[in-house]
Amino acid sequence: MSTTISPLAPKTTPTLPAIAGVSLATAAAGIRYKNRTDVLLALFDKGTTVAGVFTRSKCPSAPVEWCRAKLKGGTARALVVNSGNANAFTGKTGRAAAAFTAALAANAVDCRPGDVFLASTGVIGEPLNAKAFDGVMDKLVADARGERWLEAARAIMTTDTFPKVATATVKLGRARVTINGIAKGAGMIAPDMATMLAFVFTDAPIAAPALQALLKAGVTDTFNAVTIDGDTSTSDTLLAFATGAAAAHGAPKISRAADPRLKGFAKAFNAVLANLAEQVARDGEGARKLVEIVVDGAVSKPSARRVALSIANSPLVKTAIAGEDANWGRVVMAVGKAGEPADRDKLSIAFNGIRVAHRGARDPAYDEAEVSRAMKRPEIRIKVSLGLGKGRDRVLTCDLTKEYVAINGDYRS
Amino acid sequence: MSTTISPLAPKTTPTLPAIAGVSLATAAAGIRYKNRTDVLLALFDKGTTVAGVFTRSKCPSAPVEWCRAKLKGGTARALVVNSGNANAFTGKTGRAAAAFTAALAANAVDCRPGDVFLASTGVIGEPLNAKAFDGVMDKLVADARGERWLEAARAIMTTDTFPKVATATVKLGRARVTINGIAKGAGMIAPDMATMLAFVFTDAPIAAPALQALLKAGVTDTFNAVTIDGDTSTSDTLLAFATGAAAAHGAPKISRAADPRLKGFAKAFNAVLANLAEQVARDGEGARKLVEIVVDGAVSKPSARRVALSIANSPLVKTAIAGEDANWGRVVMAVGKAGEPADRDKLSIAFNGIRVAHRGARDPAYDEAEVSRAMKRPEIRIKVSLGLGKGRDRVLTCDLTKEYVAINGDYRS
Repeated sequence: MSTTISPLAPKTTPTLPAIAGVSLATAAAGIRYKNRTDVLLALFDKGTTVAGVFTRSKCPSAPVEWCRAKLKGGTARALVVNSGNANAFTGKTGRAAAAFTAALAANAVDCRPGDVFLASTGVIGEPLNAKAFDGVMDKLVADARGERWLEAARAIMTTDTFPKVATATVKLGRARVTINGIAKGAGMIAPDMATMLAFVFTDAPIAAPALQALLKAGVTDTFNAVTIDGDTSTSDTLLAFATGAAAAHGAPKISRAADPRLKGFAKAFNAVLANLAEQVARDGEGARKLVEIVVDGAVSKPSARRVALSIANSPLVKTAIAGEDANWGRVVMAVGKAGEPADRDKLSIAFNGIRVAHRGARDPAYDEAEVSRAMKRPEIRIKVSLGLGKGRDRVLTCDLTKEYVAINGDYRS
Repeated sequence: MSTTISPLAPKTTPTLPAIAGVSLATAAAGIRYKNRTDVLLALFDKGTTVAGVFTRSKCPSAPVEWCRAKLKGGTARALVVNSGNANAFTGKTGRAAAAFTAALAANAVDCRPGDVFLASTGVIGEPLNAKAFDGVMDKLVADARGERWLEAARAIMTTDTFPKVATATVKLGRARVTINGIAKGAGMIAPDMATMLAFVFTDAPIAAPALQALLKAGVTDTFNAVTIDGDTSTSDTLLAFATGAAAAHGAPKISRAADPRLKGFAKAFNAVLANLAEQVARDGEGARKLVEIVVDGAVSKPSARRVALSIANSPLVKTAIAGEDANWGRVVMAVGKAGEPADRDKLSIAFNGIRVAHRGARDPAYDEAEVSRAMKRPEIRIKVSLGLGKGRDRVLTCDLTKEYVAINGDYRS
């Protein structure tokens, strides 16, 4: 775990308000880390609905399999998250550890195990000692309070250098509802779904299928548009919980995602997802630059996405940015290898608004000194115009630094 | 350019014999580097046939486009290679520079420009000053000799830390024929074709279509099975030249790749390709470990290849190897993200012959101390058994070190 906070961390951390129907507690169960919390328990009032999206990995973790199966019920009473051990690639033992944890929480909360959702993050392949939760579960239930969001975000960190929280309040009908989110990220981040662990909570009364549709739509341009290293985790999990408590002060009950009353809420919900996803990029392992890749003029949006990801995942582009070098030749390379329609002689590239390449060659007007100054900024925007069609997309990433190698060269040992 | 030779460099360098019909010369044209050679001229006797495979980049360099067009003729009289500037993404100027270089060589050699083949490697996007060749071309032609292979390999280096040469002699019919090869690699290496620049020369009399078929078949499990960073260059070029001079001492003229008399030759030819490709991996930028990924039990060979590449290109796997950590959890992750059929509960993983994971969980018999010792070796073999079918493949890569980031963070500047 890194001890230095990412220089790209947000300058301020919002204070998250309580959400009626949600209470939180954290504990140090000693799963792997010493002297820090490593378990989060979130408790939900009866009637809370749940939605989720997960890693597309063919080797998902035991908690991912557990959540996928339990999501069908559409209701949630508890969420248990631990850091330090991913309970992934742990075979039967892992499945048993997940079931044991759910049973433990269900017993403490007095609900069905199927209403308990689980997420684990950390080392892969080591058996998770779920017995460790036994010693803290009753205390967690007793301690749970409405205002422990920052503590919650801290308990789920692994190589993260800062806790990630976001909040929004928005009108649903005439009632004011709140959306809170927490996330953890750092490495093994690639857009094959909701990246790493993120949890969003609201008091809005939204039926599970509508919440699921909302989440699925929201993730496309937020968590799925972030890549740190192209490595998709076995454990990526994004869960949304809606307690419905705002119905008591007049929020309308929403059963369909297409409900026009949901429009403002959906916007605020997506903003919370986007905020958390950007924080994940800002805390990419060893990151010193937040990099936004914008591709336009592609033949379609999916084509623009693939070109943007090819650039965002290129080690040569990422190391050039770490070196504050506007090496657009490597951007050309990454466009070329994406396999998408591209015409070298129509290609233009700009770094932080300075066009360096135009129509297949170096821009004659481009001033190396000016672009060198621009590359010193902590936020780099690479704009690639393919000049073929109207497809446009954007992804976020970070640079590839020696610190990334250092963090990942001795993470396990 | 790095000054320290890769610790993975071959311990001995073979002396390459002359090949009748081929003469070589190098010069310092001052394209980019100081105090070193940066141009190679290879001259071929009349009747030399040529074959080539190139990058699949959608933004290929001007020399790649030139060679692709000229390959149709099937004959070659000269090869001009420069290092320091890739003449890629240089628009009309770049095409003109390629045509100018070919005309210059054709004039000096007294052949058609279409019989001159070109390759350039180095920085992308800077105009290539082809006029620089004007001052050295006549001297190159006058100086050309049959035994300048190591000098030739040195002249085409960029971030390479050692020159890459390989040789084989083999019987074709009753005649002994020679195959020599040189290559340069280092970064921007991915298997979307013949990686970087490599040139193979023989005195065997092989018709151009047969040579092309031989080359295309040979590249699949050699250059196309090597990845350094997953970044496909705009300039990847592999050319083969056959002078046919061995016909004078009895080698049969081969017109079809399927000719049974070619069997032994094809084996030796592939061995030269494999040797050069392995040297490219051994000189991956910043490499400290040569890594072989073997995947078996896949549903097919292409499926095994994709899983192997997913592992080989994973920054998390590569940094773990740099850290001498047998982090098989990250191998599981990379298998999972490959998108190929895989069943977690049938998966086994071994590092240098030590099985660490078996049937979806940690191997109970595995000894961390033993595997830690094995990880200290300069050559690491990761074997992944999927347990699904008979598909098997292997790829070569290297580890991802801080030196890779250092080399690529300040290569251009």
